[in-house]
Amino acid sequence: MIVVGGGQSGLVAARNVLSGGHSVIVLEARERVGGRIWGHELKPGVVVERGGTFIGPTQDHLAALASELRVGTFPVYDSGNAVYYVDGQRTTYSDAGPLGSAPPDPTILADLASVVGTVDEMAATIDVNAPWTHPQAAEWDAMTFEAFVAQNSTTSRFRELATTVCRPIFGCEAHEISLLYTVFYVAASGNETNIGTFQRNFDTRNGAQQDGFVGGSQRIPETIAAHLGERVHLGQPVRRITQHAGTVEVHTDHLTARGKRVIVACAPALADRIACEPGMPAQRDHLTQREPMGQLVKVTAIYDKPFWRAQGLTGQTVSLDGLASVTFDDSPQQGGLGALLAFVGGDSARSYLAMGTHEREASVLGDLANYFGPKARQPRQVIETLWPEEVYSRGCPVGLGIPGTLSAYGPSLREPVGSIHWAGTESSGYWNGYMDGAVRAGQRAATEVLAEL
Amino acid sequence: MIVVGGGQSGLVAARNVLSGGHSVIVLEARERVGGRIWGHELKPGVVVERGGTFIGPTQDHLAALASELRVGTFPVYDSGNAVYYVDGQRTTYSDAGPLGSAPPDPTILADLASVVGTVDEMAATIDVNAPWTHPQAAEWDAMTFEAFVAQNSTTSRFRELATTVCRPIFGCEAHEISLLYTVFYVAASGNETNIGTFQRNFDTRNGAQQDGFVGGSQRIPETIAAHLGERVHLGQPVRRITQHAGTVEVHTDHLTARGKRVIVACAPALADRIACEPGMPAQRDHLTQREPMGQLVKVTAIYDKPFWRAQGLTGQTVSLDGLASVTFDDSPQQGGLGALLAFVGGDSARSYLAMGTHEREASVLGDLANYFGPKARQPRQVIETLWPEEVYSRGCPVGLGIPGTLSAYGPSLREPVGSIHWAGTESSGYWNGYMDGAVRAGQRAATEVLAEL
Repeated sequence: MIVVGGGQSGLVAARNVLSGGHSVIVLEARERVGGRIWGHELKPGVVVERGGTFIGPTQDHLAALASELRVGTFPVYDSGNAVYYVDGQRTTYSDAGPLGSAPPDPTILADLASVVGTVDEMAATIDVNAPWTHPQAAEWDAMTFEAFVAQNSTTSRFRELATTVCRPIFGCEAHEISLLYTVFYVAASGNETNIGTFQRNFDTRNGAQQDGFVGGSQRIPETIAAHLGERVHLGQPVRRITQHAGTVEVHTDHLTARGKRVIVACAPALADRIACEPGMPAQRDHLTQREPMGQLVKVTAIYDKPFWRAQGLTGQTVSLDGLASVTFDDSPQQGGLGALLAFVGGDSARSYLAMGTHEREASVLGDLANYFGPKARQPRQVIETLWPEEVYSRGCPVGLGIPGTLSAYGPSLREPVGSIHWAGTESSGYWNGYMDGAVRAGQRAATEVLAEL
Repeated sequence: MIVVGGGQSGLVAARNVLSGGHSVIVLEARERVGGRIWGHELKPGVVVERGGTFIGPTQDHLAALASELRVGTFPVYDSGNAVYYVDGQRTTYSDAGPLGSAPPDPTILADLASVVGTVDEMAATIDVNAPWTHPQAAEWDAMTFEAFVAQNSTTSRFRELATTVCRPIFGCEAHEISLLYTVFYVAASGNETNIGTFQRNFDTRNGAQQDGFVGGSQRIPETIAAHLGERVHLGQPVRRITQHAGTVEVHTDHLTARGKRVIVACAPALADRIACEPGMPAQRDHLTQREPMGQLVKVTAIYDKPFWRAQGLTGQTVSLDGLASVTFDDSPQQGGLGALLAFVGGDSARSYLAMGTHEREASVLGDLANYFGPKARQPRQVIETLWPEEVYSRGCPVGLGIPGTLSAYGPSLREPVGSIHWAGTESSGYWNGYMDGAVRAGQRAATEVLAEL
């Protein structure tokens, strides 16, 4: 069995098929495994995250895997207050209140309660494994999330917050995604016994940003890859997959792998770029034409120590000004260094990418100084990760449900085409777009293949 | 100089670069030239159209080319009345009135006048070569065309008509495209002295469907290809383009072409599938992730003669029922046969593709019988062209401007990337999506390249 893509999902799939007693090989385009999971090692064992970072409640599949592989977790620093920055004014607030990480701005409270409440109610009616079957799927998918927010809110400040929050969560503006997709994504922030809520998705405390991984999240794919050993082939971008007479051939520039089944474990927008013979059926082909990747840049500023903690700050920010709309404390557990992780997404990412390097750095450090004071302007180092420029990811964090896609093409996210099966976090019901979804998708694809081999 | 794609645009580009005194080769994926222009020969010289069919006023570049190549035109049959079919009721009307091809349904007249009038006024303010510079570009691009129609109309019947009309024009539903893109597309239905209008786009009489080509539109690309001779290589899908040190290499499965410049003359969604080294900059890469092809199927029923003419009918229909929402008389000028050409687009195309062959035929013939009487059920032959299944088109008629794409990524439709230039109708200002736009784009790309060689 052949796996295309050595990210979390593909490696989990390979591991499970191997455990099932079958031979596997993994073809990975990059010279590293992990895909959208990627750490930057400051010194041995001291890592800051460039991609997938956190784990939180109901992410059971990721938690079980990490535990099995003996990769530990630690709570994201969350003592003290978060920063809310708007119109050049900084206020601080605690995320221990009923609003969680959402800022308690009195001008938005009514809209926030109403929109989040409504989205959560809608989410509770969604089958995350088949959101296209919802009675209002067509109606909700025909509407942008921005239009929904406009119809259900009274203040322009709240509408600004809504699109600002889309930037780190999806890497897009609220007008790029459909209401159905947004509701599905919220519903997906849970498990079989706890349907997702907006708060669980967005929050640190009791939410998806609750814990980090000791030594970095990439220890998980790296540990699986080490176990798979020479079955993992790096530097092998897959160009073409041919199916005939029960055999599938997978071609890179340098090798051809033959097998009975293949699992393509990458985002639809990347699967789109693999030439298939015979060609994909229209349903699958038009899905992959219609699920663009989010535009997300992550910028991490490294300091001698996490100086904001002494100021009673958690390192978390929600900002309506500047390019860095959300920040977290990403200080590695070991080493004593401080790290502020800033998310730059959607229109902000487009502006950021259009700047030169110095302008970029000055812009984000200026934002961090607004949030955390002048010390933020003096980092030891700034690490930026331009996911939209990464040839083998082409965006982050996730493939987006543009208006009309999920309702019309959703079933093709998972439905096998001949001997080709689909993994990758975009094919998951629960925790779609997250590392937990990647694990779930890899497990599901492996189960499909094992039933056929 | 190397051209990727032997459709109208690529062939025009190749011809012009050759005329400029430089060597060219054209790499075409299919075993035929023409791309989305494709005829079906019923007998020698007697052709019905599977793809691009018509020519009308202000399509000057296509007209000049056809004239130079001695490919004649003839008026689309337009004597008598058109059919309007709704709620199982057939009425007929003349397209010689002020509404042109739009049906004079009294329940929609006020909305029609208001929406078409507003769109035309907006279109008159657009620079078709840079719609993203319009002062309201961001605002209009954040809204779906459906939301605009809903806000500017009073009857559900009109809203139904608006999305029905999107099906043949764009191959999509009104919620899949942005207002900015729709307004741009209307503006583009003209030339430097006559900005486009909705009527010119939609109409037969004095509109984009005014004339057909004697012997079929594919005579134009075929004539150019014959002139280019062995410079055109068929059956050569391009997989990879590498640029280094002023040289560009274009790789197919069987050959590698080297040159100073390359023109990629295909839709963005297909260009997306060519691996480029170095990788595309984010601006271009995210454009090609965000411009899916329309879903359009064309079904032509062939009869012994055009029997509807004797009933005083033109063969044209606008229908809110059934899958075939718009029809035309596509009877070849020679041979005496009758041909009804039905457009099945958007949600109707998705339904159509999900049916079996017999169900498809029964469905469309049932529609035609509703419009033209029981004789329509007895064709000699039915020819269906499933553009969404065509591996080297992957949809028709055009790449779609989903919300947020044109305003954020529009400049990358044409901006060269190193030695790679872009043609294809999607890169044209005027008559974007039409054969005239393909000609214009090929000419413009050739001019760019000639300035560099």
